[in-house]
Amino acid sequence: MSQTFALTDLLNSDAPAAAARFKGLPRYNFVGGHNDPDQIPTEAFAEAAAHALASEGKSLALYNLGQSPLGHAGLRAFVARKSAETRGIKATADDVLITIGSSQGLDLVNQLFVKPGDTVILEALSFHGEISRLRALGANVVAAPVDEAGLRIDALADILRDLKAQGIRPRFIYTIPTIQNPTGSVLPLDRRHALIDLARSYGVAIFEDECYAELTWNKEFPPALYALGPDVVIHIGSFSKTLAPALRLGYVIGPWELLGRLQALRKDASGALEQLIVAAYAEKNYASHVATLKAALKAKLETLVEALEREFGTAVEFQRPDGGIFLWVKLPDQVDVRSLVAPAAKAGIVFNPGPEWAVDPESAKSWLRLCFALPSHGEIEEGIAAFARVVAEETGLKLHSDNRAAVVA
Amino acid sequence: MSQTFALTDLLNSDAPAAAARFKGLPRYNFVGGHNDPDQIPTEAFAEAAAHALASEGKSLALYNLGQSPLGHAGLRAFVARKSAETRGIKATADDVLITIGSSQGLDLVNQLFVKPGDTVILEALSFHGEISRLRALGANVVAAPVDEAGLRIDALADILRDLKAQGIRPRFIYTIPTIQNPTGSVLPLDRRHALIDLARSYGVAIFEDECYAELTWNKEFPPALYALGPDVVIHIGSFSKTLAPALRLGYVIGPWELLGRLQALRKDASGALEQLIVAAYAEKNYASHVATLKAALKAKLETLVEALEREFGTAVEFQRPDGGIFLWVKLPDQVDVRSLVAPAAKAGIVFNPGPEWAVDPESAKSWLRLCFALPSHGEIEEGIAAFARVVAEETGLKLHSDNRAAVVA
Repeated sequence: MSQTFALTDLLNSDAPAAAARFKGLPRYNFVGGHNDPDQIPTEAFAEAAAHALASEGKSLALYNLGQSPLGHAGLRAFVARKSAETRGIKATADDVLITIGSSQGLDLVNQLFVKPGDTVILEALSFHGEISRLRALGANVVAAPVDEAGLRIDALADILRDLKAQGIRPRFIYTIPTIQNPTGSVLPLDRRHALIDLARSYGVAIFEDECYAELTWNKEFPPALYALGPDVVIHIGSFSKTLAPALRLGYVIGPWELLGRLQALRKDASGALEQLIVAAYAEKNYASHVATLKAALKAKLETLVEALEREFGTAVEFQRPDGGIFLWVKLPDQVDVRSLVAPAAKAGIVFNPGPEWAVDPESAKSWLRLCFALPSHGEIEEGIAAFARVVAEETGLKLHSDNRAAVVA
Repeated sequence: MSQTFALTDLLNSDAPAAAARFKGLPRYNFVGGHNDPDQIPTEAFAEAAAHALASEGKSLALYNLGQSPLGHAGLRAFVARKSAETRGIKATADDVLITIGSSQGLDLVNQLFVKPGDTVILEALSFHGEISRLRALGANVVAAPVDEAGLRIDALADILRDLKAQGIRPRFIYTIPTIQNPTGSVLPLDRRHALIDLARSYGVAIFEDECYAELTWNKEFPPALYALGPDVVIHIGSFSKTLAPALRLGYVIGPWELLGRLQALRKDASGALEQLIVAAYAEKNYASHVATLKAALKAKLETLVEALEREFGTAVEFQRPDGGIFLWVKLPDQVDVRSLVAPAAKAGIVFNPGPEWAVDPESAKSWLRLCFALPSHGEIEEGIAAFARVVAEETGLKLHSDNRAAVVA
């Protein structure tokens, strides 16, 4: 019998268009949370895999390894220990839910707290994935100003007071206090205390995203908000930035009243091999790995900063971050970076346009985020030089660079 | 400052209650899609891990391993090859989307096709996870009768005609044609062709779930519906039953018009280590592993059948399945298995009550599903003996068993 219809006739009216087919990676890739391929501990992972499979492999026969749906007990215990050591957090394995990357943590916490029309407060510059998730949920997203140290507490207090005057109680303040995304700032201790005081007095939760907090260059940095006010803070973190993003291992730390509900909401869990292997790996290797990784990342940041100064001269401004994998860069006010996306892509360069990282896109039209973990030192230098050529061609800017002038002239 | 509110004050009004805390596994565990722990190929997985990490481990630094969001190319190619060899399916790696178990496949396909009020047709006895998912989506779930060979085509034709007369076009017919869940039946070839003809003439999709199809004892069994009518069939499968459920590796096979939309809909992907390791493992080991696993499962089924006959005598009825990991068992009509759940649990025994596996729960009130892959032969024997004692105590039934009589007398 011949076909009388197409399967696509039966799709929901709001079904998305098919995604773009994958065409390979760009040559100069300055986007996303990718990591440094040379820093993936492949041998130690293989040793951990052999060890974990020999000692616990049979448990793969059971959903959740026959353990709590919160996740592998050893991995949860490790998360609790490292969060105590590096973030000052008091937690046990029972306070940890292993998630499919921190992205599942974002989805679950959003879903638990936010309904269409609810108000949430975000840093004016924030993770585009959370801005877009909250908008997709129909939330009213209010921007709180940030400066070079992060959330401005005075401005936040005004916002909370104004919202209260309108009868609006925000669900949460979503913040990335330590290596802010995209600015790279680290919120000082006094602001952390002030933020928690505000949350308590206005009855608003703090949703703390600490994906990058372990990648800080300096040893002295403040504890997590959760460590200071566990009564009002939900804390999420990830192994994506410290180990590998393809692993899909993140976590939520919080009380059972929240974790038990997040567990009830979620449809699936991280793969057990990842959990077994990372648990076996982490105990012995994690701390030294993170130290090595940070040194490698800091060196790549130096290469990026030098390349920008060489190729762009005074046409770029940025604040050198205290850690992380990205640099938040400003071009002159007359440049709208959105006009650079297509010509840059044509030259094999991709970057994150600032407007996608801002609650008010226009406010960041001259900004861009450059991620530096993935490209090699050579690719960073070549890519920034190629990007400078694109910028000069598209904007007519004279880039103050002896080096570039020599090349172009 | 003291706390003036609880985080739970801020949750959505429809937030779920916290899940039950995990209390460990029951002694006699006859529920769920668990596998046989002794059949987990832990050594071969470790070898595969070492190989895959050495050759591809650096790619863990990139989301999606730097590959298509469809999943690891080698794993997708393997799925295409095994689906050709064992299920007669013509597909390439580009027709395969790797999912977080088949459960993500169910969620994505449901979400793409079904909105509140839409009608879907399910086998009258079906996977409880799909019945509950579709009801949660607000679907109108219509039951199509099944017999010992699966879907009754005559009855399905009547249903489709009646729905059409009411102006209702169902979105899809969800079916588990090969090792039906829970009945274990295998749909004969002539019914497969007739089902596809019906789908074509009524303009209804077929959603084919083949999670168990490779675990058939007999070599002769019909090809997948997708092999016979790819124009009207969406096909899902899984490595959960053939390798390990904790891996969270399933797949959807279909044209790009569907896969590209499922990819656009989904929020996350399977862990890359699972994909790398299983891809490296499968090429060399998969076919022989499945053969060994099937023999082990068949032997456990024999132990279960013998134990049921010994302990329950003529008080149980069942159809010996042609494969899989569960047996669908009927107790006398006067028994409502729901009344046995609590006393059985008290005795350390858990089973799947038939009503949860039926679109009309009352229709299966005397039925239960016993999964036999996880418990050892000894646990099967002890567990069924213990269950017979519970049934006798709770129902007053005289179970015709010399053995049991000897123990109890």
